[in-house]
Amino acid sequence: MKKLINDPKNVVTEAVSGFGAAHADLVTVSLDPIFIVRRDAPVSGKVGIVSGGGSGHEPMHGGFVGPGMLDAAVPGAVFTSPTPDPILAATKAVDGGAGVLHIVKNYTGDVLNFETAADLAAAEDIEVRAVIINDDVAVKDSLYTAGRRGVAGTVLVEKIAGAAAERGDDLAGVAEIAERVNAQVRTMGVALTPCVVPHAGEPSFTLADDEIEIGIGIHGEPGRERIKLEPADAIVDRLLGAVVEDVPFVSGDKVLLLVNGMGGTPQIELYIVYRRAAEVLAEKGIEVTRSLVGNFTTSLEMQGVSVSVLKLDDELTALWDAPVHTAALRWGR
Amino acid sequence: MKKLINDPKNVVTEAVSGFGAAHADLVTVSLDPIFIVRRDAPVSGKVGIVSGGGSGHEPMHGGFVGPGMLDAAVPGAVFTSPTPDPILAATKAVDGGAGVLHIVKNYTGDVLNFETAADLAAAEDIEVRAVIINDDVAVKDSLYTAGRRGVAGTVLVEKIAGAAAERGDDLAGVAEIAERVNAQVRTMGVALTPCVVPHAGEPSFTLADDEIEIGIGIHGEPGRERIKLEPADAIVDRLLGAVVEDVPFVSGDKVLLLVNGMGGTPQIELYIVYRRAAEVLAEKGIEVTRSLVGNFTTSLEMQGVSVSVLKLDDELTALWDAPVHTAALRWGR
Repeated sequence: MKKLINDPKNVVTEAVSGFGAAHADLVTVSLDPIFIVRRDAPVSGKVGIVSGGGSGHEPMHGGFVGPGMLDAAVPGAVFTSPTPDPILAATKAVDGGAGVLHIVKNYTGDVLNFETAADLAAAEDIEVRAVIINDDVAVKDSLYTAGRRGVAGTVLVEKIAGAAAERGDDLAGVAEIAERVNAQVRTMGVALTPCVVPHAGEPSFTLADDEIEIGIGIHGEPGRERIKLEPADAIVDRLLGAVVEDVPFVSGDKVLLLVNGMGGTPQIELYIVYRRAAEVLAEKGIEVTRSLVGNFTTSLEMQGVSVSVLKLDDELTALWDAPVHTAALRWGR
Repeated sequence: MKKLINDPKNVVTEAVSGFGAAHADLVTVSLDPIFIVRRDAPVSGKVGIVSGGGSGHEPMHGGFVGPGMLDAAVPGAVFTSPTPDPILAATKAVDGGAGVLHIVKNYTGDVLNFETAADLAAAEDIEVRAVIINDDVAVKDSLYTAGRRGVAGTVLVEKIAGAAAERGDDLAGVAEIAERVNAQVRTMGVALTPCVVPHAGEPSFTLADDEIEIGIGIHGEPGRERIKLEPADAIVDRLLGAVVEDVPFVSGDKVLLLVNGMGGTPQIELYIVYRRAAEVLAEKGIEVTRSLVGNFTTSLEMQGVSVSVLKLDDELTALWDAPVHTAALRWGR
């Protein structure tokens, strides 16, 4: 295992510590228990938004903490759900009196631990609602999931719900917006290479030199099928075909197109993927009105990509465009 | 070779085409010859800034085209200098009557081809000045370079010179600012893994499973030495030791600290590197007043990192903070 780390046991603590030092203008970090909150938390009268999950998907979620997006992020160990304690601590730290929304990717451990934390918060008179994200069309059930997995579409939910909270929506309103985004976004990914979890020291799966996995999960969980390597355009056609037919997206729809790198993919390849994805959508009469290309929901150093499509309406577009100031997404200020 | 590409011959054309589609609000792309200009080019009365070089270092330079930074970027084939033709075309496209600055990384091919383009532009009555970037402290001469190589410090030159042009400095003034940044920034990198140039199909060098290369160039050129893998903190101490003693940076200095991923490095590792780098600088009494962490000057999917330190003064800090709106760096608007 070749990594820029010290003791594998300290990977998350040291990374969060470095993140806090690099972005001290934006966030405050707690190292025991580990969570990241926006520097001015709690914001009085605003719905607080907390997300979290296993580490190894950076910038998700810590990179999305700041005005206009998340109030707190709770990173677990690499590819491991955070326990209820830090989730509760983060929830309390961001409660400005208007309640707290938990945005939770659909993995069994995450769902359970966020539920427990919500119960504990309720016992302290903090109103909590949870939205479960399950945008991955690849498989119905998976290694760590009953139902569909939550993947890169989570970023879009967090941005748009964050903007709704910032404009003053109440807890039910912010939750409704988050549910609406989740209902209208679909994602599928592909892996060219596996990744190595630091405390495991070995690749979490293997792929032959000429093999790729269509529908990969963000922890390397099995997807739909292993196939021989194909040209990028053919791979994009597979991913986008599954995504488009699922909602379904239809001619006349306006959409946001997210091309998300898995961590180890050169940016030049992400734009080759974007080019074909935009072309396919145009052929179907689906208009891409907003775009996002980069590494947002990663799997450590995995090479691969996911493609997400979100159906927009005027309100969601305005919330997407609203100012955001986080380490990983920033505009309008 | 496992890559998300179609025909290796079309990698740059397809990626630039995708980039233009994804960022049509910001840039216009030309595919024959290949260059990227900000959408509102030329800006009348403003000094135009053009950079470029081999592809494979994305987001450098196309990702830095937009208000407050570059007016144009000229990507060559992967790891290959652009020819004079597209450089000339880009120079003409951004000439708003106040002259054009070429920001050129110190590689023999880049320097020659930008010089030729400048001569051709002069023949068409466009005043051009060039600033050669050579921030890499690793080696004196290298595979493609006489003198020091230009690496990630280039991003800082482009941001700060871009802000100087935006505030209305004349060509001599913008060039002076760019020279000042180049004189005050130093960088050194490390590679854990090599990368594969698409048209070559094989890794450009090899490293044993337990070996890393200290002082690596951004095309995989040899650095100072190959050593056994060490903990991240020890590697950072090597990189930063070489950087700090070079200017030298001294107690009381205020600096910008850039931790730059080589393309395939998980973000969690970049923050582990940042943590130690900030710690070492603090121990030396050097104050980090600005930070940048992410993939800015990459080598395709290479795993590794570079650390850059730029000595700031009030003017450079203000120019760094000035609004910028590009695909890869954006704030203040």
